[in-house]
Amino acid sequence: MSRFFSGRLSALTPYTPGEQPQDRSYIKLNTNESPYPPSPLAVSGASEEAKKLQLYSDPDCRSLKKEAAAVLGFSEDELIFTNGSDEILNFAFMAYCDAEHPAAFADITYGFYPVFAALNGVKFREIPLCENFTIRVSDYTSSKETLFIANPNAPTGIVLPRDAIEEIISSNPDRIVVVDEAYVDFSGESAASLIKKYENLLVTRTFSKSRSLAGARLGFGIACPSLIRDLETIRFSTNPYNINRMTMAAGVGALKDTAYFEGNLREIMKTRQRTEEVLRGLGFTVLPSSANFVFAKHPKIGGEELYLKLKTCGILVRHFAKERIKDFNRITIGSPKEMDALFAELRRILS
Amino acid sequence: MSRFFSGRLSALTPYTPGEQPQDRSYIKLNTNESPYPPSPLAVSGASEEAKKLQLYSDPDCRSLKKEAAAVLGFSEDELIFTNGSDEILNFAFMAYCDAEHPAAFADITYGFYPVFAALNGVKFREIPLCENFTIRVSDYTSSKETLFIANPNAPTGIVLPRDAIEEIISSNPDRIVVVDEAYVDFSGESAASLIKKYENLLVTRTFSKSRSLAGARLGFGIACPSLIRDLETIRFSTNPYNINRMTMAAGVGALKDTAYFEGNLREIMKTRQRTEEVLRGLGFTVLPSSANFVFAKHPKIGGEELYLKLKTCGILVRHFAKERIKDFNRITIGSPKEMDALFAELRRILS
Repeated sequence: MSRFFSGRLSALTPYTPGEQPQDRSYIKLNTNESPYPPSPLAVSGASEEAKKLQLYSDPDCRSLKKEAAAVLGFSEDELIFTNGSDEILNFAFMAYCDAEHPAAFADITYGFYPVFAALNGVKFREIPLCENFTIRVSDYTSSKETLFIANPNAPTGIVLPRDAIEEIISSNPDRIVVVDEAYVDFSGESAASLIKKYENLLVTRTFSKSRSLAGARLGFGIACPSLIRDLETIRFSTNPYNINRMTMAAGVGALKDTAYFEGNLREIMKTRQRTEEVLRGLGFTVLPSSANFVFAKHPKIGGEELYLKLKTCGILVRHFAKERIKDFNRITIGSPKEMDALFAELRRILS
Repeated sequence: MSRFFSGRLSALTPYTPGEQPQDRSYIKLNTNESPYPPSPLAVSGASEEAKKLQLYSDPDCRSLKKEAAAVLGFSEDELIFTNGSDEILNFAFMAYCDAEHPAAFADITYGFYPVFAALNGVKFREIPLCENFTIRVSDYTSSKETLFIANPNAPTGIVLPRDAIEEIISSNPDRIVVVDEAYVDFSGESAASLIKKYENLLVTRTFSKSRSLAGARLGFGIACPSLIRDLETIRFSTNPYNINRMTMAAGVGALKDTAYFEGNLREIMKTRQRTEEVLRGLGFTVLPSSANFVFAKHPKIGGEELYLKLKTCGILVRHFAKERIKDFNRITIGSPKEMDALFAELRRILS
C-alpha cells in the first residue's frame, strides 16, 4: 500500500480469482465456465451493438429488463442488472450491512463475501456448515445478521431445499436474506418466486454459467420493488452505465434462446452425472452436486497434490487451501471430451 | 428507500445521467458522445470476442495494459483499467478519502464527485470557481483535502494550463491530487507525464469521448506504481472481472488505430471552432472550450427555455438547474451536419 491509502481499508485482502495462466493451453475446469459457446443470438446481438459504441448504453437497461421480465416471470421493477453478480452482491453489502447490521454466512462458501464485508467495513460471522457440508437451518433462523446464502453452495455444490430457504426467510422478517443463486439453473431449487411473498429476500443470479456469458459480465438481482429501488439508488450512485451496450444485447439474445439454454443445461447435467459415477468408481468421495461442478476428494492423494499433478498434465481444477476442504478439488463440468481427458489422467495418476 | 436500507446511505442522492429519451429520434448533443463510430479495429476485435463469451475475461487486463503502455508511453504498472472512468473515480474516493481525509473540488464541475463523496461517507468542500469560471490556483495549493480537478473542466470546457496543475500537485506532497482528464484529448494539456515525478498524482481518463467507446464502458487511471497497487487492491476487492472480453478487445483495437483517432480529433476540433464562431455570431457568450462541447448562454433567452425549445424540435442539449450556470447550455460537438441543424434551429428560435 502507498502511504496515502486510507487506514479504513488497510487490512483489505483482495479476492483471488481462479488462475488464468497464459503459459500454455489448458483444459480449464477451474472457474465453472460453460463448455458451450454463447447462443448465436447473444453473439449476433453483441456484434451488432459493437458498431454503435460511440453512444452510451441505456442506464435504465430497458431492453434487458423487458426481456428478462417476460422470460423469467417477474415484473421489470423486480429486477436490477449489474456488472456480474459480484456487483449486486457488493451492492447488497452496501445497502443492507453496516455497524448495526453485521453479516453472516457459512464458513465454507463463496470466498468473496468476507472481502465485500471488509471493503464495506462490515463485521461478519462465519457459521460452520455441518460435518457433511450441509447447512443446519436452525443456525440461520431468527438471526441478528444480514444473511448471505449461496444456494447451491460453492465450492461444495450442495443445495438447500426451497422449503428450508423459506423457513430461514420467514423467520427473519427484520433481516435481509440474500440468496446467491449463481448456480441455480443446474439445481431447479430457486427461491426467486418467494420475492412475491417476502419483502426481506434478495435473490442474486448470473448469466456467467448457465447462459455461457462469463466473459460478458452480467448479473442481476430479483427482489420486491422497494429493495430494487434501494439497489438502483446505489447503482446510480456508483456507475449508472454499468452494463455496456454489447453485454446488454448479449443478455437479451441469451434470454431469447430458451431452447439453446435448456439444451446446454441438459448436457451439462448429464455430464455431471457421468462424472460423479466415474469419480466414485475411481474411489473418490464426491459431494452430491446441484451445480456445474463437483467437489471431490480421494483417500490416496491430497487435494493440493492432485491439483498440481493435473496442472502439470494440462488440466486446471480449483484447490482451496482451507483447513476443512483442503483434501478436495472443485472440478468444473466441461464437455464430454474434456471430462474423458480428465478421467484418463486421473486413472494414470491413481494407478 | 425500504425500511432495511442502511442509515449510513439514507441521504444518498444518485447521479442524474443525461437523458436518453426513447419517444422519438433526437440529434443528441447532450452527453458528449463522439459523432463518429468506433474504429473498425475496435468493432472487429469486440465482435471476435463475442464468440468466446463463455470464458471469463482476463482479470489482469494484460492485452489492454500492454497496448496502452506502448501507445500512451507509460509502463504497465502505471495503468489500471475500469468500467468507465466513473469506476476509477469511485476507487479514488475509496482509497484516498475518509473521515481524516475529506475531499475538495470546484463548485462547478463534474456532478458525480459529491455523489461519490456521499456514497463513501466522505465530507467535502466545494471551492468556488472565479467569476469567469476559471480555477484560482491559490485555492488549491497547500490543501488539507484530497483534490479532484476535472481538466478540462465540465461543463465549462475550460482548461487549466499544465504549469498551474503542476503547482497544485507539488504544493500538496501529502495529499492525493486526482486530475480527471475525461476530455484531455481535445485540449492537449495533459498532466499524465507528471506521474513520473509526483507520487501524489492520479490522472483518470476515458475511452468514451475521443475514442468513440462510450457504450463499451472503458476508463483508466495513470499513476505511479504504488498508487496503482492501492487501486488494484480495491478493484480486486470489488469486481476483478470489471472489464468484459468485448470491451477489452474494443479498447485494444481503438488504441491500435492512431490515425483514425487523430483524424476524428481534428474533425471535432474543427467543428468546435466553427460552432464557437457561429454561436458568437448569433450573440451567444461561449466559454473558451478545450473539450468536445461548448458551454454557451444568450442574453435574449434563458438556459432552460432554450433547452426546452430545442428539445421540442428534436435536438437535445444539456441544461443544469444550478444557480451560477442556469443561463447556460452544454452543447456537444456533433457532426458538421448535426451542428448545421442546430444552427438553423437557433436562428429560428432567436429570430
